[in-house]
Amino acid sequence: MGCTDKGTKKGSDQRSEVIGSLSTELFKLKTSDETGRMIEEILQVDEDSVSNITRKSAEELKKEYDRSRKIPEDEFREYSILTSKAESIWEEAKEQNDFNMFRPYLEKIVQFSRKFADYWGYEGHPYNALLEDFEPGMTVDTLDQVFSRLRDGLIPLVEGVTSSSHKPQTDFLFRSFPQDKQKEFSLEVLSQMTYDFEAGRMDETVHPFAIGLNSKDVRVTTKYDEDDFRTAVFGTIHEGGHALYEQNLPDELAGTILSDGTSMGIHESQSLFWENFVGRNKKFWEQNYDLLKSYSNGQFNHVGLDQFYHAINEAKPSLIRIEADEMTYSLHIILRYEIEKGLINGDIEVADLPTIWNEKMEEYLGVTPPNDSQGVLQDVHWSFGAFGYFPSYALGYIYAAQLHQAIKKDLPQFDMHCENGDLDPIRQWLTNNVHQYGRMKSPAEIIKDATGENINPEPLLTYLEEKYKPLYRF
Amino acid sequence: MGCTDKGTKKGSDQRSEVIGSLSTELFKLKTSDETGRMIEEILQVDEDSVSNITRKSAEELKKEYDRSRKIPEDEFREYSILTSKAESIWEEAKEQNDFNMFRPYLEKIVQFSRKFADYWGYEGHPYNALLEDFEPGMTVDTLDQVFSRLRDGLIPLVEGVTSSSHKPQTDFLFRSFPQDKQKEFSLEVLSQMTYDFEAGRMDETVHPFAIGLNSKDVRVTTKYDEDDFRTAVFGTIHEGGHALYEQNLPDELAGTILSDGTSMGIHESQSLFWENFVGRNKKFWEQNYDLLKSYSNGQFNHVGLDQFYHAINEAKPSLIRIEADEMTYSLHIILRYEIEKGLINGDIEVADLPTIWNEKMEEYLGVTPPNDSQGVLQDVHWSFGAFGYFPSYALGYIYAAQLHQAIKKDLPQFDMHCENGDLDPIRQWLTNNVHQYGRMKSPAEIIKDATGENINPEPLLTYLEEKYKPLYRF
Repeated sequence: MGCTDKGTKKGSDQRSEVIGSLSTELFKLKTSDETGRMIEEILQVDEDSVSNITRKSAEELKKEYDRSRKIPEDEFREYSILTSKAESIWEEAKEQNDFNMFRPYLEKIVQFSRKFADYWGYEGHPYNALLEDFEPGMTVDTLDQVFSRLRDGLIPLVEGVTSSSHKPQTDFLFRSFPQDKQKEFSLEVLSQMTYDFEAGRMDETVHPFAIGLNSKDVRVTTKYDEDDFRTAVFGTIHEGGHALYEQNLPDELAGTILSDGTSMGIHESQSLFWENFVGRNKKFWEQNYDLLKSYSNGQFNHVGLDQFYHAINEAKPSLIRIEADEMTYSLHIILRYEIEKGLINGDIEVADLPTIWNEKMEEYLGVTPPNDSQGVLQDVHWSFGAFGYFPSYALGYIYAAQLHQAIKKDLPQFDMHCENGDLDPIRQWLTNNVHQYGRMKSPAEIIKDATGENINPEPLLTYLEEKYKPLYRF
Repeated sequence: MGCTDKGTKKGSDQRSEVIGSLSTELFKLKTSDETGRMIEEILQVDEDSVSNITRKSAEELKKEYDRSRKIPEDEFREYSILTSKAESIWEEAKEQNDFNMFRPYLEKIVQFSRKFADYWGYEGHPYNALLEDFEPGMTVDTLDQVFSRLRDGLIPLVEGVTSSSHKPQTDFLFRSFPQDKQKEFSLEVLSQMTYDFEAGRMDETVHPFAIGLNSKDVRVTTKYDEDDFRTAVFGTIHEGGHALYEQNLPDELAGTILSDGTSMGIHESQSLFWENFVGRNKKFWEQNYDLLKSYSNGQFNHVGLDQFYHAINEAKPSLIRIEADEMTYSLHIILRYEIEKGLINGDIEVADLPTIWNEKMEEYLGVTPPNDSQGVLQDVHWSFGAFGYFPSYALGYIYAAQLHQAIKKDLPQFDMHCENGDLDPIRQWLTNNVHQYGRMKSPAEIIKDATGENINPEPLLTYLEEKYKPLYRF
């Protein structure tokens, strides 16, 4: 998810101003006394005389309203202009590998985030106030527990694959695979996933995303690399997972604030479920490998399914989060979480970020970035002030693994459905347990009701162990 | 110009509602008492104490304000929803070749347009009230004169090329020309045109357009057809001409209503100037033909420049406006103008359109559409109520030819500049005479000041005669 318009260089100032003005206007509307009065009126009506949906909508609106009212309008305007500007600066800083160029902007953004956390109020850690925007109900206490268990479980696994002598051959992945053929294959996979093309479309982009204008118009975008078909294929499956969530939101929520994913983490669980538990499942490729071969220029001619399967499940420490595999990815996130937490409560200073970043990379992944562009400057998120966002990605992995464990109980034929390309029962289970609720249920409620458990990193660790130990023979 | 988002089928209803609501909100803002008071305040200030730009902005705003205030809000909402819906219906009607499916919508749109013309008021013909939106100051009296002279001059020319035995060979145009190579060549041409890539970008689309967010962010889009390089190349030059207008609007107008083309007709004159008077000029190809060849797969290997030049200047009657050449194009427009005029004053009924369309096609171009999809249903414009828009296209041709005649007086080396790929003096002349004024001058003032004449179809007729008589030897 996430959608950035790639504007022109010379247009940056005017663009920042326009975005600042529009955000301010929207902010004014959302925080007006009139809006407040309307919400209160609904909440004060007798329980029986409004529908559940109306009441829940009003409750969710009230949360956002109260949050927004706590930010003074002029500070919000200043913050909007700052973050819009900071995004361009970050881009240049990354290009020029110059952290100090970005540093003063990031310092101001951190100051704003601390101040906002104070305005919003919190119990325990101030970072809790920021998490609320992305994963309502999530706290530092929970994340500390879950992430430290995950980190401690992952590090030996990463060491296992790193020191394994049974590494996959991957050269055959990187052959010229014509873009139009990649597109045809990607469309076939989206069809298998039951993506509804009458309520969506697939376009090309630089940074893939899925965007739901409403449940009848949910678009996915794909990036093509002719020398690496994985970018398009796994990217499409990933965005397709996001799209299925949005396309299967129920009609009765349409037009309300509840017609949306319930949190970033649950949304990410849907994309990762499809990308990894379906798309990187060997059974899925028993169905689709011949099809993929038929679209390629022959790059897989002498490559057996086992070899192919290991290649697309290569796990190894790397510098760049968005290129990381399903095993190492969460470690990139945990590193960011620890840094964000420290920035917000003042334990960490922006000036120290490059050093801290590199030390943690070495500790968790055994690699050290050669420069800041491939280190602390790699992600755009901080430039627009999205502190509290990163944890969602790892939560998505954790939730997806929990859902995978649960679906296999309800649908023991899960692997056979993948093997037969009959993915509708899988989509239906996800719709029944996740999609259909929109924001009527909290993330914690979704997971509890679907799996019978609270958030739990064990299914992810078990899945990774059972998959990678035999693959890498350690 | 013109930009349509291609939404999903199932999303059509919700999209129509959203567009309807947003248009209504914008309409409310633009027509609020407060807006009116602000405009009046500026207009009442002493002449010397506000800048020319502020005063002219207020005058232009007042025109739009007065126009908008005359439409009752509920009628505007109904009209917005109707036209948004009608666009989807038109698309389906065209696909199914079923005029009757579209007819009731078009009838309602015509009724609205008549009513709006009455609300707005007019002297002479009610169509004058509609023209004001696209070509301020233009009237049916002027158009009748100019277009009838043009039509009477064009018909014998069309007969000349139709009956000529010296028709060009064109088969070599339709060979596979890789998309990425077309793109590289198109980018080279945009560079020659002095398009500023730091204040713009080129993307791919289904229906090409140029869009200026502001003068520092002016984007062009290109459509590629691997079997016909002309779509991308001439399309890019055309949209590039629009873009140069927007990129060269002066900084002091930025952010005001005046930072825009002064009319659709003048805007079109810029795109057509570049497309035809530069891009279909033989001198231009003396500079660029070898370059084009070097990007192609060899399709021009045995084709001399003269042969190539005649092929890209093929003129012949055809059914579809957007595929028409520079000679026949205006006849497609004149036909639409005559029909629109009749619909608005009640001389023509919607029900009779297919018959009238086909009769006029036969009379002006000597061809009869085999069905309505290739006839009266071919254009989207009426579905969104844009009566008064079509004349702009022919005005663009007329203005462009007048500007061409004028530039050749000021810049006798015009052809040599094309031959040398030194297009900056041409762009500068257009900036000095057209771009720099934005909406500070009316279309009539632009043409009068740049050429010393009022609107005049003779330069276009002379240009076409001098170009096509030798080419087709008649």
